[in-house]
Amino acid sequence: MIGSREESPLYPIANPESVAFFGASNSMASMGGNLLQSMQAIGFRGPMYPIHAREKTVHGLQAYASLTETPTVPELAVLVVPAHAVAQILEACGQRGVRRAIVISGGFKEAGPQGTLLEKEILAVANAYGIRFLGPNCIGVANMHRRVNTTFVEHEGKPGFIGMASQSGSFITQMFHYLNQFHLGFSTAFSVGNEADIDLAECMAYLALCPDTRVIALYVEGIRDGRRFMETAQAIVPRKPVVALYVGGSEAGRKAALSHTGSMAGSDALYQGMFQQCGILRASSLEELFDLCWVLGTCPIPKGDAVLIQTHSGGPGAAAADACSRQGLRVPGLSEDTRERLAPLVPHTASIENPVDLTFSKNQLDYFGPIPEVLLEDKGTHSLLFYYFTPPQIVRRALQTMGVPPEAWEGQIEELIEGQCRALASLEGGKDKPLVAYTYRAWTDFGVQALMAAGVPVFPGAERAACALRGLVAYGRVRERFFA
Amino acid sequence: MIGSREESPLYPIANPESVAFFGASNSMASMGGNLLQSMQAIGFRGPMYPIHAREKTVHGLQAYASLTETPTVPELAVLVVPAHAVAQILEACGQRGVRRAIVISGGFKEAGPQGTLLEKEILAVANAYGIRFLGPNCIGVANMHRRVNTTFVEHEGKPGFIGMASQSGSFITQMFHYLNQFHLGFSTAFSVGNEADIDLAECMAYLALCPDTRVIALYVEGIRDGRRFMETAQAIVPRKPVVALYVGGSEAGRKAALSHTGSMAGSDALYQGMFQQCGILRASSLEELFDLCWVLGTCPIPKGDAVLIQTHSGGPGAAAADACSRQGLRVPGLSEDTRERLAPLVPHTASIENPVDLTFSKNQLDYFGPIPEVLLEDKGTHSLLFYYFTPPQIVRRALQTMGVPPEAWEGQIEELIEGQCRALASLEGGKDKPLVAYTYRAWTDFGVQALMAAGVPVFPGAERAACALRGLVAYGRVRERFFA
Repeated sequence: MIGSREESPLYPIANPESVAFFGASNSMASMGGNLLQSMQAIGFRGPMYPIHAREKTVHGLQAYASLTETPTVPELAVLVVPAHAVAQILEACGQRGVRRAIVISGGFKEAGPQGTLLEKEILAVANAYGIRFLGPNCIGVANMHRRVNTTFVEHEGKPGFIGMASQSGSFITQMFHYLNQFHLGFSTAFSVGNEADIDLAECMAYLALCPDTRVIALYVEGIRDGRRFMETAQAIVPRKPVVALYVGGSEAGRKAALSHTGSMAGSDALYQGMFQQCGILRASSLEELFDLCWVLGTCPIPKGDAVLIQTHSGGPGAAAADACSRQGLRVPGLSEDTRERLAPLVPHTASIENPVDLTFSKNQLDYFGPIPEVLLEDKGTHSLLFYYFTPPQIVRRALQTMGVPPEAWEGQIEELIEGQCRALASLEGGKDKPLVAYTYRAWTDFGVQALMAAGVPVFPGAERAACALRGLVAYGRVRERFFA
Repeated sequence: MIGSREESPLYPIANPESVAFFGASNSMASMGGNLLQSMQAIGFRGPMYPIHAREKTVHGLQAYASLTETPTVPELAVLVVPAHAVAQILEACGQRGVRRAIVISGGFKEAGPQGTLLEKEILAVANAYGIRFLGPNCIGVANMHRRVNTTFVEHEGKPGFIGMASQSGSFITQMFHYLNQFHLGFSTAFSVGNEADIDLAECMAYLALCPDTRVIALYVEGIRDGRRFMETAQAIVPRKPVVALYVGGSEAGRKAALSHTGSMAGSDALYQGMFQQCGILRASSLEELFDLCWVLGTCPIPKGDAVLIQTHSGGPGAAAADACSRQGLRVPGLSEDTRERLAPLVPHTASIENPVDLTFSKNQLDYFGPIPEVLLEDKGTHSLLFYYFTPPQIVRRALQTMGVPPEAWEGQIEELIEGQCRALASLEGGKDKPLVAYTYRAWTDFGVQALMAAGVPVFPGAERAACALRGLVAYGRVRERFFA
């Protein structure tokens, strides 16, 4: 393993000083032009050199007829050209002293025997010049913290803490918008494509040392070098969690993977065993992959598998208890001490069991402060699953009944809800125990947004929350195993 | 079974001509006042009579000191009063000729032996007067089509086609906002609470005959009279699908259910067998419950289990193929005829397999028209799973490159996206085969909203879409079984 991320061959790819673009033109259909626009949109700070035989400028940047004419030697070359033209351009890169490349172009191993030959050829050229590259058949890299985005999709949202290495470019670009809705984002994401040179394991090793990355997400269609992959993962997981989604285990998934990146997938049991052995958590869907990243990147690791559920509604409480059970988590009774401390805070109709079902709030603010505070201190449980439901119209009605004039509602509703969310997020007990919320409100709900903004992971539905908690518990066990 | 919904004891509860409210006051903490406000907000058209000993008006409506003073005999009484006061009020209702009631009040069977006695007492009073009632410990009824909402949560969204009977009131009220985000809604929803009198089976029988209801959703914590429930369901499912969520099967779920509605839950296997025998589809989460309702209420029933997947991105395609496989659906190859018709429409990098992976679009409009049209006509497959991803910024870039001035973008982007969605939704082949979309765009995305508005069910992620399709296939098999 390398000792710092600067030693990784990926460092200049994720943090280039300057970039040359092959295949970027002003035409609307030009994928290369699209990448350049994404780099411009994110505000890349270094020089960008479009290389184009005829155009004088490409998207407002000075273009160069040949790589030999650029004012400096670009640190990275990005290629979006027909497959047969790649070798020749890599040759030119080698001669000019360019040592890193991203080959976006498709038409290689994934396209059949002819493409496999082409892929061998470009690898030979790269090796001859000491060029390390991502791809082919990939979309490159997105490092929001350094304003790098070589994908054809404009970035949306803020930089985040999820480091990703993916055999699907779409699961990077098409996640920008997805993650942003949860106030999440990538630190750095690598699309590895066919992995002719740089593979998933090298990306993992880079992300393990990346200070912006708190958790590593993998999308896997097939692993080329199992031993190397496992050795790398085993060295990482005790310090940084790794979560993987593997889709090649079913017959249909295997076929689709083959025609996508030419990956040879293996049986589900084989991959399951491999992940388990090296401490990688496995997700069964893309949502679960990022749900696990969310809690692993923001919550303390729970000291056990007992969950306490706080709700004011019976159905959501019962659904959460059932969901936790099905995830193999325990939902034990409350300690006597907790019951005693809780009693004065709750109405007589409340159920001081687990789930703690308040039925309604004597004081709405208690639900977000004193009550979860007591619950987080319960000795027999290791995490708190919190049901969130405060529709603005209920707050509005309360203000109305209190005689607050309508023109003052809007600001006050938001202020009240935000205050509740901040109170919950800042509870002392939440520093040692995971506090995770679930809701059935739509994602546009003001309070749901406020709760996430305050730093509490909020899941749509009890099942996703329980599943995320199971992941946290599983990671705690992985760490115990490694440090035992 | 009854022959028309008018014969059901629930008809005057879901479609009352006039309503008396016990326990509604002007106080902010008054739950009863809240219900009245919900009825006002939805625009209930008949007379409402708050019964209050001291207040002259309640929320602007004339109040009456006693039920004997109301100008007409109310068709329905809604009670939100302490448990010990319910019997006496039912007595008064009986004497005045009121024959239907909703008892919102809690503190009965769910609260222990004392409450169980109280529950028997109110049932005896009701029986003596021929009063049929929902509850106790429920939130009543919401019939959007008749502007009835006796819950404490204001309704959001439009009336829909999902009929619900639920042992959780929250899973009605807290779903208004949830369903609305998918352009869905309830036709009529009953919260049954402790089911002292009217039970889930009677609600099912009503909903089976309700012309606004296309599919019936059940939330179950425990079934009181198994035989009656099954006989009712068996009579319904051949003509109208029924989907159930049962949470009492796990130890934690069972305990939570007991303290919630006093339900005696049974083993998971018992309920699973019962649902299977009477053709009820079982959902494993609230999301899945409504996902199944969505496709069952809008899609034709597929003639088999073979799914065709259309995508322009490899990862989402592979994930969908894997998800379908895991749901027990087949993802077979394309017929020769389909391949031939598809070839001229797709770029040379496309994979004309299943998933059909276009990699990119030669013509963006083809993706929403001619291509899915060909795929819907494929002889060997029975439904089409469509990947949706059109971020507005990609359309904006295309317009920019085409030289369209920035001030014209906004309107044109929306027009283009809406046109695509309408084209997809109106394909002839979609009338005989389910066409279901999945996406990873956030729910606020303009195109996702446009696609739903055009009538296509869109699911967040491949797994939920595959699961919904499995439900459709399962219902097809249920019907075959009953009609065989």
